[in-house]
Amino acid sequence: MSRLLHALVDGEDSTRLSVLDRGLHYGDGVFRTVRVERGVPCNLTRQLARLSDDARRIGLAAPDTESLSAQAMKLSAGRTQGVLKILLTRGQGDRGYRSTAAKPTVIQLLYSMPEYPAACWRAGICLRTCETRLAINPRLAGVKHLGRIEQVLARAEWDDPMIHEGLMLDTEDRVIEGVSSNLFLVRDGELLTPDLSRCGVAGVTREMILEAAPAYTRAVRIRDIDMTELRAADECLVCNSVIGVWPVIRFENTQWPVGPVTRKLQAHFGDACPRGV
Amino acid sequence: MSRLLHALVDGEDSTRLSVLDRGLHYGDGVFRTVRVERGVPCNLTRQLARLSDDARRIGLAAPDTESLSAQAMKLSAGRTQGVLKILLTRGQGDRGYRSTAAKPTVIQLLYSMPEYPAACWRAGICLRTCETRLAINPRLAGVKHLGRIEQVLARAEWDDPMIHEGLMLDTEDRVIEGVSSNLFLVRDGELLTPDLSRCGVAGVTREMILEAAPAYTRAVRIRDIDMTELRAADECLVCNSVIGVWPVIRFENTQWPVGPVTRKLQAHFGDACPRGV
Repeated sequence: MSRLLHALVDGEDSTRLSVLDRGLHYGDGVFRTVRVERGVPCNLTRQLARLSDDARRIGLAAPDTESLSAQAMKLSAGRTQGVLKILLTRGQGDRGYRSTAAKPTVIQLLYSMPEYPAACWRAGICLRTCETRLAINPRLAGVKHLGRIEQVLARAEWDDPMIHEGLMLDTEDRVIEGVSSNLFLVRDGELLTPDLSRCGVAGVTREMILEAAPAYTRAVRIRDIDMTELRAADECLVCNSVIGVWPVIRFENTQWPVGPVTRKLQAHFGDACPRGV
Repeated sequence: MSRLLHALVDGEDSTRLSVLDRGLHYGDGVFRTVRVERGVPCNLTRQLARLSDDARRIGLAAPDTESLSAQAMKLSAGRTQGVLKILLTRGQGDRGYRSTAAKPTVIQLLYSMPEYPAACWRAGICLRTCETRLAINPRLAGVKHLGRIEQVLARAEWDDPMIHEGLMLDTEDRVIEGVSSNLFLVRDGELLTPDLSRCGVAGVTREMILEAAPAYTRAVRIRDIDMTELRAADECLVCNSVIGVWPVIRFENTQWPVGPVTRKLQAHFGDACPRGV
């Protein structure tokens, strides 16, 4: 569980937001989740670049990344660990889908680091299949926008604390991602991850793995993956900016060892906290 | 344009919401838009029943409709006209898709009635095709949840004040609905409206038209409709709880008269404000 430690709304200390905010009414905004380690938001430049990309994808002006960065640094200063969530919405507007918002709202929330068992990194985790599917819409694919009801419904499908992630398929049975993570497979020395051009969220850790992987694998491929191929993999892992890399050791009747490529990627990222930009 | 007149958050006068609300973070909630006429929210019982249905669809406990109804009546009292938006979210929670919210948030917002030209009812409107498509996900089809970024992107596609609605297709080219309305066609004396079992929002006015139509048409059919069939229609109309029924008289190169079934449905609903339950 991750509890709120400090909140900024448009740069000011506040835990309140206008009821007219379009983030609430329409999911009309984008966000990033950033790990904070030893007082510093990890990979912040890259995270803000992706936030700006996603803002553009939904027709929002690029945010002032210098100002966002200063706020993020201020919130993170002095914290040993934490999770920073940065939300950018289209701002307050009148009723109706048409935007009358004068300026975007920026919300930065610093939370405590969730207490995952060390075994998630060392021994690996169990994955289950979610019944809730990801809808296909290339117009929004990859974008981390605020409309995440599919993930909420998927996460509500299980209570078992031994299961640490749920696998989401698209409505046409392709393997896409975890509820709150991206997914990679290793097969015959190749690293594979699902194509996110129809749906899914393109995370920063996924991007960093794709960049780092050529040093550790024979080839890296982004393409469609089905359940048969998932089960036939030699290694399986999930990743996001908070957890870094978790090996997947069990998926229903399929079991995997914690493989060498997974271990190399964990080592590359300093075990838990992805380093980089 | 529709401006805020009065706001209640959990029954209290307030225009502020917690930044931890899951409605903001995930679009994790549902809503209804209700026309207010002569101090009374139109079709409130039916609207609250649909709100409860949608809440159940996303795993929220049914709201206390008596309390919601009392709040809605209080906000509407003494108002000649207005638009009431009722939002029900999963409430405040910790970070993460898994719900830790103790209780839902209820927000009721009373807005001024938007000033549409009378010609929209009398002479009819122009419709255009949106490039933004509706993603297909039967799990959420029909539900008026808070994740409406597709509608926001679709509405941002045009500025021309002579165009009053945009037509949305699904990602497989079916005709589904207007950006903020449902759509009906008349063909050979039959009333047709798109099947909303894959995507779309099932409005209360659509439901009331489906119930009323047997008195005015030979048959009523809910089924898949494509662009060819749309263009070949004898009449076309859009509807929602604020506007009631608007004839569509032009869709790109296609023109329609304001037909007799459309006029009968307008008359049935007292021209602008749907009456009923």
